[in-house]
Amino acid sequence: MKVYKAHILYTKEKNRFEVLENGYIAVDADGCVTGVSTNLASLHGEDSEVVDFGDRLLIPAMNDLHVHAPQYRNQGIAMDMELLPWLHNYTFPEEMKYADTEYAERMYRRFVRDLWRVGTMRTCTFASVHTESTRVLMRLFQESGMGALVGKVGMNRNCPEGLSESVEDFVHGYESLIAEFNDPNALVRPIVTPRFIPSCTPEMLRACGELAAKYHLHVQSHLSENRDEIALVQQLEPESTSYGDAYDRYGLFGQTPTVMAHCVFSESEEIALMKRRGVIVAHCPTSNLNVTTGIAPIRQFLDEGVRVGFGSDISGGHNLSIFQMMVYAIQMSKLHYQRNHARSFLTLSEAFWMATKSGGSFFGNVGSFEPGYEFDALLIDDRDLNHDNYSLLERLERFIYIGDDRQIEKRFCRGKEIKEL
Amino acid sequence: MKVYKAHILYTKEKNRFEVLENGYIAVDADGCVTGVSTNLASLHGEDSEVVDFGDRLLIPAMNDLHVHAPQYRNQGIAMDMELLPWLHNYTFPEEMKYADTEYAERMYRRFVRDLWRVGTMRTCTFASVHTESTRVLMRLFQESGMGALVGKVGMNRNCPEGLSESVEDFVHGYESLIAEFNDPNALVRPIVTPRFIPSCTPEMLRACGELAAKYHLHVQSHLSENRDEIALVQQLEPESTSYGDAYDRYGLFGQTPTVMAHCVFSESEEIALMKRRGVIVAHCPTSNLNVTTGIAPIRQFLDEGVRVGFGSDISGGHNLSIFQMMVYAIQMSKLHYQRNHARSFLTLSEAFWMATKSGGSFFGNVGSFEPGYEFDALLIDDRDLNHDNYSLLERLERFIYIGDDRQIEKRFCRGKEIKEL
Repeated sequence: MKVYKAHILYTKEKNRFEVLENGYIAVDADGCVTGVSTNLASLHGEDSEVVDFGDRLLIPAMNDLHVHAPQYRNQGIAMDMELLPWLHNYTFPEEMKYADTEYAERMYRRFVRDLWRVGTMRTCTFASVHTESTRVLMRLFQESGMGALVGKVGMNRNCPEGLSESVEDFVHGYESLIAEFNDPNALVRPIVTPRFIPSCTPEMLRACGELAAKYHLHVQSHLSENRDEIALVQQLEPESTSYGDAYDRYGLFGQTPTVMAHCVFSESEEIALMKRRGVIVAHCPTSNLNVTTGIAPIRQFLDEGVRVGFGSDISGGHNLSIFQMMVYAIQMSKLHYQRNHARSFLTLSEAFWMATKSGGSFFGNVGSFEPGYEFDALLIDDRDLNHDNYSLLERLERFIYIGDDRQIEKRFCRGKEIKEL
Repeated sequence: MKVYKAHILYTKEKNRFEVLENGYIAVDADGCVTGVSTNLASLHGEDSEVVDFGDRLLIPAMNDLHVHAPQYRNQGIAMDMELLPWLHNYTFPEEMKYADTEYAERMYRRFVRDLWRVGTMRTCTFASVHTESTRVLMRLFQESGMGALVGKVGMNRNCPEGLSESVEDFVHGYESLIAEFNDPNALVRPIVTPRFIPSCTPEMLRACGELAAKYHLHVQSHLSENRDEIALVQQLEPESTSYGDAYDRYGLFGQTPTVMAHCVFSESEEIALMKRRGVIVAHCPTSNLNVTTGIAPIRQFLDEGVRVGFGSDISGGHNLSIFQMMVYAIQMSKLHYQRNHARSFLTLSEAFWMATKSGGSFFGNVGSFEPGYEFDALLIDDRDLNHDNYSLLERLERFIYIGDDRQIEKRFCRGKEIKEL
């Protein structure tokens, strides 16, 4: 057992922070928290070595529920284009390059390293349609020691030929990844990833649902990002009663753990289905702004008990840091509130909870410091921001709002310290 | 004369970038640009030493048109509070501390250093009501070598007693600053600063207008930030036909160069008056989000020929970097566009132009690299962001969206390299 001492902050519940000034946290050999307290004796950690981190802050690590790894080169460019030219001139041509595993290795290594930099220890990411490049990405995550659900993308319609794959090839490629990454307790696992309904024929969607059921795999896709897309889905799947229901009919909506990105225009029936199925929303506020999507009804999701976490959604989003997603989520909820005072805006503790305990729940017992949670943590050295008498909560808020990776001194995933890739 | 060689990017016009790959820029002994070209001979700079910055980007420096220096301690805290508790529990108590010049010196030194860090070479800032602390701030700017318009604040109603000053004391204190900072060509100058109409009696506003006229000083204040404030102004100044007109009646609306922060709810008459008087808008998008204000009609201002620059508005805003104001301004204009497709969203060149040539115009010939402009510049070493074959414009866009002060290698103000304070 190991015991760490620091100022410990986390969110057991969404409405308030747990703040332990000079607290202790005990972590067992499996990387799980066994106790957290300001009283060392209560942790039965007297015989353990205590690693004293002094005046630093210790917080749960970040979880990114939606990002496109093969769009990493395009982060921060073409940000003043409309969706369609952006997709056709930037996104699809870039993803096609991942037929080349050497290119993939070069870009993905940088991507994984930068996730590490910004303190994201668990990532749920789209790869491309290419099996071998997806394998490269999964091996890089394994090498890093961080957790990842990585999705070889299924798509076979409404896309350039170079990004279309037959259902047979898709399943074959997918199963070759499952064969390599077959430990259900491993940090790096495949996730079933139909790009979204407009890109997938019914056969592809059916194959995806079957893979998820057969191998007990998580599922990720996009949902209700814009109104044209919703109308198109209704046309492609005329029997469905909502976009979510269209996934549901293929076993892709909570039959196994499922994350759906965006959900900006989800309406009551879809929201009820998400709740019933335990589908978690990946809220991507910077992407929603950059791609001119709109403001997702996050307060409504929280009020109605729908699970929500954050996604950076590179390269629709430009910012890889989940801390900045918290800032943007609060700001966008204020715009929402400004139009409709019936729903209050998000608080810092709610945003933090979404980034940690709520988002982390997609990966298991991740995102909190309660006993039984895997120890995913960041050690924050905020000396350069802490130049006056700030409270611990103010120090955390300042780090979230104005800090960056320079203040992240150490990173832990499942109990192990993670070094730069 | 000095000649610098680099990849030079700037915006002469708002609709496009000037991009000089391996360009040269010549700067005379007064710190003014005499020419910019890819052809060294055309600059008559053959006899000059050429300082070769290699593969780096050289761009105009940033201009911040609205910020509250004595709120710097509160940057990034209390961000999920409503306006009034925020003002009364955080802002006013903090400003009161500036009765103590030692506290002021400590905080202001950090503020000036951080402006330097983020590449803002010209700042138009509110100080507090305190004359001696304002003097401290002005001397720090002088010491730094950067440009600043610094405003001892006028306020004598609707505020805590410790922040209220009689008109007589205000004018007396103000003139003692003018006496010290009396060179009209100096980089650091006083600016007349009524806090806003609700904080100033008619006598205070009259005194401000007289100071501006008598000493040919610039003017700054707040305008049309929220609807309650506008209604209050109408009640306090019943003869005024708009909030802007209320300032105008006291000689505080373009009789001398004037900047007004926010202008979120400016309507047609006020907009027409702003245009006629050459009043420049300080657009503060992060503040408008954090304080639940709304989205300023920037596209309309540009279309109608109203001048616009950016303000960080610490601590309503949380981010000191004007580069991040560009990002937020584009994003917010997209939300505006999403609601009303009649006005397109801002492009990167427009945002860059607002941050440089348009915002810089409040300080004189500042913000461009055209001949006659003062050489305010940043040298950007973006090697860590430039990991693939990006065009020069893509490199600039990536630096703006995902870079930070780590990429700013050198800073120049009026021709001189500025070192850390």
